[in-house]
Amino acid sequence: MAKGEQTRQAILARAFELAKMVGLSGLSIGRLAEDTGLSKSGLFAHFGSKEALEVAVVGEAARQFVAQVMAPALQKPRGEPRLRALFEHWLAWGQRPGGCFFVGAISELDDRSGPPRDALVQTCKDWLDALATAARITVTEGQFRADVDPDQFAFEVYSVMLGFHAYQKFLHEPVSLARARAALERLLASARPPAPRSR
Amino acid sequence: MAKGEQTRQAILARAFELAKMVGLSGLSIGRLAEDTGLSKSGLFAHFGSKEALEVAVVGEAARQFVAQVMAPALQKPRGEPRLRALFEHWLAWGQRPGGCFFVGAISELDDRSGPPRDALVQTCKDWLDALATAARITVTEGQFRADVDPDQFAFEVYSVMLGFHAYQKFLHEPVSLARARAALERLLASARPPAPRSR
Repeated sequence: MAKGEQTRQAILARAFELAKMVGLSGLSIGRLAEDTGLSKSGLFAHFGSKEALEVAVVGEAARQFVAQVMAPALQKPRGEPRLRALFEHWLAWGQRPGGCFFVGAISELDDRSGPPRDALVQTCKDWLDALATAARITVTEGQFRADVDPDQFAFEVYSVMLGFHAYQKFLHEPVSLARARAALERLLASARPPAPRSR
Repeated sequence: MAKGEQTRQAILARAFELAKMVGLSGLSIGRLAEDTGLSKSGLFAHFGSKEALEVAVVGEAARQFVAQVMAPALQKPRGEPRLRALFEHWLAWGQRPGGCFFVGAISELDDRSGPPRDALVQTCKDWLDALATAARITVTEGQFRADVDPDQFAFEVYSVMLGFHAYQKFLHEPVSLARARAALERLLASARPPAPRSR
């Protein structure tokens, strides 16, 4: 990585952590300058505008999500083990300091329009596609029934994760993790072929 | 209803609609004065403070939710018909202008503390309890298996509703409603006793 690219990457990592605390809207080039000790003009040279900074932070979130959630899960065998790994790394992602960047950003940007929202929508759709692909492979492997709809499965797993965050962050429910895991188990169980009947 | 109470109720109904558009934080006594044509001093006499106004708006949201979602569903027979009615009226609630007040308010207040957040948490818990009760009755009626956990069921239905709002409001997915309904059907199916085996 060139020096300039390294600097930009370090700033982005810091901006991402800051955005988890203050929101994308709360993130400004001025605030980032205070936080990093860099000059505002230097930061402008890297990002150009607050909007471009927001888009870059969404990109950084996506990059970290791929590295921390998708990449380790892809080490697991195809089918249910991979789906479980995706789910567990995703749970862990949402429990790092500041919570899940995406849950916060979605509620922040859902009324806005423009490039940051578009970038966030695309990132979420890419993730839902990745979940659907993992489910489709599980069908192909014969671990799920052939009539399981992978996109419906992705919707339901995503819903469980949103429920988990509401229970944990908003309701402060101590059983949030257990509820989320039980929901995944039920989802997996309902997608499996019926057990062969004993005679 | 006394005249003063009627006036307060009319102001609250207006404040509730306004809060769906601008958020609880965006709601101020000044803005409500502009919106209703009433004097700020008159509104202060009714609510006392912005915080008290926020608590009153959460109460108004709860009152309307009970009237529009719970009350009509309680007309339906106990068991699955009532669960379906709760779900359908809840879907309809979230599709009125401004969307679901609670989804917006939860993401707005989850980092704050104080009486408005407490009121919102209590309202959500009351609703989850009502869902769990409806599921428990469905067990008692024999339409769900005895080992179905009503609180887990409530978590999963709630998750589906959050998934629905994310798909519809954020992703603008045209299939959001179909996804939500299919998820409910799968939830109901997985809670039913196994069909008797034919010989």
